Amino acid sequence: MSYTLGIDYGTNSVRALIVDCRDGRELGTSVVNYPSGEQGILLDPSDSQLARQHPGDYLFGLENSVLGALAEAAKVPGFSPAQVIGIGVDTTGSSPIPVDAHNVPLALDPRWKNELAAQCWLWKDHTSHREAARITELAARYRPQYIAKCGNTYSSEWFWSKIWNCLNTAPQVFAAADSWVELSDYIPSVLAGARTPAEVKRGICAAGHKALYAEDWGGLPDEEFLTFLNPKLAELRGRLYARAYDATEAAGTLCPEWAAKLGLPVGTPIAIGEFDVHYGAIGSGVDEGVLVKAIGTSTCDCTVVRADRNVPDIPGICGIVNGAILPGYFGIEAGQSAVGDIFKWWVEVVLQGDGATHRDLTEQVRDQKPGQSGLLALDWNNGNRTILVDPMLTGLLVGQTLHTTRAEIYRALIEATAFGARAIIERIREYGVTIQRVVCCGGIAEKNAFLMQIYADVTGCAMQVSGSAQACALGSAVAAAVLAGPERGGHPDFPTAQKAMTSIKPVCYAPIPENQAVYERLYRLYRELHDAFGGVNKSADLSRVMKDLIAIKQSAN
Amino acid sequence: MSYTLGIDYGTNSVRALIVDCRDGRELGTSVVNYPSGEQGILLDPSDSQLARQHPGDYLFGLENSVLGALAEAAKVPGFSPAQVIGIGVDTTGSSPIPVDAHNVPLALDPRWKNELAAQCWLWKDHTSHREAARITELAARYRPQYIAKCGNTYSSEWFWSKIWNCLNTAPQVFAAADSWVELSDYIPSVLAGARTPAEVKRGICAAGHKALYAEDWGGLPDEEFLTFLNPKLAELRGRLYARAYDATEAAGTLCPEWAAKLGLPVGTPIAIGEFDVHYGAIGSGVDEGVLVKAIGTSTCDCTVVRADRNVPDIPGICGIVNGAILPGYFGIEAGQSAVGDIFKWWVEVVLQGDGATHRDLTEQVRDQKPGQSGLLALDWNNGNRTILVDPMLTGLLVGQTLHTTRAEIYRALIEATAFGARAIIERIREYGVTIQRVVCCGGIAEKNAFLMQIYADVTGCAMQVSGSAQACALGSAVAAAVLAGPERGGHPDFPTAQKAMTSIKPVCYAPIPENQAVYERLYRLYRELHDAFGGVNKSADLSRVMKDLIAIKQSAN
Repeated sequence: MSYTLGIDYGTNSVRALIVDCRDGRELGTSVVNYPSGEQGILLDPSDSQLARQHPGDYLFGLENSVLGALAEAAKVPGFSPAQVIGIGVDTTGSSPIPVDAHNVPLALDPRWKNELAAQCWLWKDHTSHREAARITELAARYRPQYIAKCGNTYSSEWFWSKIWNCLNTAPQVFAAADSWVELSDYIPSVLAGARTPAEVKRGICAAGHKALYAEDWGGLPDEEFLTFLNPKLAELRGRLYARAYDATEAAGTLCPEWAAKLGLPVGTPIAIGEFDVHYGAIGSGVDEGVLVKAIGTSTCDCTVVRADRNVPDIPGICGIVNGAILPGYFGIEAGQSAVGDIFKWWVEVVLQGDGATHRDLTEQVRDQKPGQSGLLALDWNNGNRTILVDPMLTGLLVGQTLHTTRAEIYRALIEATAFGARAIIERIREYGVTIQRVVCCGGIAEKNAFLMQIYADVTGCAMQVSGSAQACALGSAVAAAVLAGPERGGHPDFPTAQKAMTSIKPVCYAPIPENQAVYERLYRLYRELHDAFGGVNKSADLSRVMKDLIAIKQSAN
Repeated sequence: MSYTLGIDYGTNSVRALIVDCRDGRELGTSVVNYPSGEQGILLDPSDSQLARQHPGDYLFGLENSVLGALAEAAKVPGFSPAQVIGIGVDTTGSSPIPVDAHNVPLALDPRWKNELAAQCWLWKDHTSHREAARITELAARYRPQYIAKCGNTYSSEWFWSKIWNCLNTAPQVFAAADSWVELSDYIPSVLAGARTPAEVKRGICAAGHKALYAEDWGGLPDEEFLTFLNPKLAELRGRLYARAYDATEAAGTLCPEWAAKLGLPVGTPIAIGEFDVHYGAIGSGVDEGVLVKAIGTSTCDCTVVRADRNVPDIPGICGIVNGAILPGYFGIEAGQSAVGDIFKWWVEVVLQGDGATHRDLTEQVRDQKPGQSGLLALDWNNGNRTILVDPMLTGLLVGQTLHTTRAEIYRALIEATAFGARAIIERIREYGVTIQRVVCCGGIAEKNAFLMQIYADVTGCAMQVSGSAQACALGSAVAAAVLAGPERGGHPDFPTAQKAMTSIKPVCYAPIPENQAVYERLYRLYRELHDAFGGVNKSADLSRVMKDLIAIKQSAN
């Protein structure tokens, strides 16, 4: 018997999962919430765009989640930690951490403990929008190839924007940092006992999607280009990395210190770290023609195209990177900056409700017909990641009367995220990439049949659900099983491992034709607002929007 | 000693007020809520635009409110009902009631009791928008003069739209009605004991503002024009009225039946009925250069211009009628379809809160700076009465993030109504009508200093508050005192009566220059949305709206 360990760092917590390599059976799992800040996030009351995380929370969570999962697995007859043949790690990203010359995060030094700029710059931190806009501008002028595969727009959520922002706003932190390490590279490097940033083996996933890394142009952006940004960034380049690796490589093997802490064998191979949604895509059975949609606080949409095919640049799609998800495939990534977060905002921040409120609201509008509320919303409360790639966009709600209920607004927000999802699917298809099926993963996909049906009706795609409730951690475990190889009880390659270890739930949400027809009309109105407020259409005629919503409402009643 | 009785029919309740003619002192008052429907309004769950009222509630409220006020006044030493020298009545409008040949509302007949079309068609009923659009179209083609003084747009809230809608949707009710009487004419006619519709003395206020009545063209719209609508309306014309009167005339004198019910002298003169806000304007000291703003569930803005001046047609202003408010003056009326109703919607319908919630929310955002929330809203949850005159418009909120609070949205809704108020003031001034001061009346003006300061900052006008909390009822009592005349202890004319009986509170809200500067920027953005969604600008560039809101927010923080 052989098992692998998948460790999944989410936005608010970390989960460890012990998986049977033969069939993907889950033997033990444990979740640890990050103890610092608000639900694990360090905020700045004067700047709602800021979101940081304390690196100490990651180490605390690493030890405790793995011990918890092992303790649970230990109850399964026949399991022993000695049978764990590999470790895989996935995390949020781009979440870069400034580290010292010993690969220790600056924030673990008492000197920097309370400095927000010295923490991990969490993926959803949007403070660096000015830097992102400038990078986009400079790349468009001098290195268009750099951004051609990320929708021609460099995001405020990404590596260079954040590091440059640190240089601009907290130069003392920038100066103190020897290097910057993505969270997805940092955790494997801790387990592998890397003593310097140079020893950290970097993944192509974070490098290619967020740091403008590509073998085509010799790795990271060249020094001349970085000098256009700031000479200090050019100087930093040499202290980052020259090469990044796909998931066929190992990030290292388990070091004695962490082997002792966790009670696992020294030398256990550790897979290259990838982003949660990328390993989540693997754990959900991503393949050509399959879009995996991880629906959580935000969403991430992933698909793959064989590396020998010609994949065009797709405007507004935030990344097309060779080897980023599956080795031998282009990984295509898109996403929405807020999905679950929008529902949570409505229920918890505005209505001051809780989980029961979510259920109540759903009950109240479950049987409403599409368009019946007369409402339409944009899903931009946290900006737009795809297809506009603009964090300086905000939410919008239109159509409310004096009778509009809280539940109707809740439904309109769900529909807004479905329209955003459709915009992504349409854009990817427009450029010749096939999407035949959508497999969703994440708690919302599992629990919210109401939302899933709306997604099916709005997108016109059948919606399936990943077999595992822990698709990301499972994907990490799959990568670990491939890395371990068949001779140790793992698998020879990803397709074989996916076939053995992953599954799809029996439920499938098929589009309902009469709902599709109404959503077709609503989606046209959504696109009118989307294009007008998103700057695509600068001479918009919105004079019919409210009237058309009333007409749709009247025909639904 | 002499007193007058003012009776004010609001949207949810009726108030009676006994006033001392010498100084406006209020001796007794009583409010009676309408017992039927939801807060006095009959609704149709399948049509949110419908709002009707049971005429029986008006009679119940008449008797009980007057008896209540008299009982309270009776505690004042020296008061006797015999000293009541006149009665004035104001009501909502246009609120037409179908009546039989005996001037009895059809809804009082058991046959029609449960028929919504047989009730009073409350001012805020918007079901007749198709009829309104068609009347506007036909008038523009054949009788442009008819709508030139009501902003070139006939409203769904008005007399002919509603009656035509009744003919179209409930022809049996239309056929059963001998005539239609505005609520503001109906109540005086009941007190005066009118036995047929022909005996009802109609006010120029309702006739001129809502029924296209003007002496210039011989009264109501001519038969040919009404035939364009429907020959049955032309036929109805003869059973309506040939002449309407201003407030120098009496509607009649108190009939024995009602004198006995109320314990007041038979023969007490009854003033011509006007709309609540028109008598409210009188009760608040309306004069040339003074805009009176009645802020309640909706708002109504009234000012006057001497009848010998040339008042131009003002596009989008819903009425300019000679004698409608003060005899000898053009009355100019504008308004917003929902103001207090929008705050109430947010607090009671969406947040499921109560009065305490209003106070809490105000506390939370009282000290925020203009623009600090990044939010902007349109005040169209019940359509737009002025300056777009379009009931088929709806609410809009933009700028929300994942951190936006319920209180910030509450403030944004208040600001939205202030922007709507400014649009009206600007439009009136554009056409050469002077507005030097704004006097507000209604509970919101009295109690909500926070809102009043925002209105001052947004409009740039000093905001004063009417001295009486019952400005409408007081204005009715003023009209009654003028009708009674000096020989019976009343007054010779309106200016003299207003000077003696009305006042302004000592408080005055002056615009704060730094707030004005920010609201200037926000108002420009409001107008961009207003014009784009309202159909004024059909090639709108809204690409900066969200970004400008973020910029204003950042500079406010």
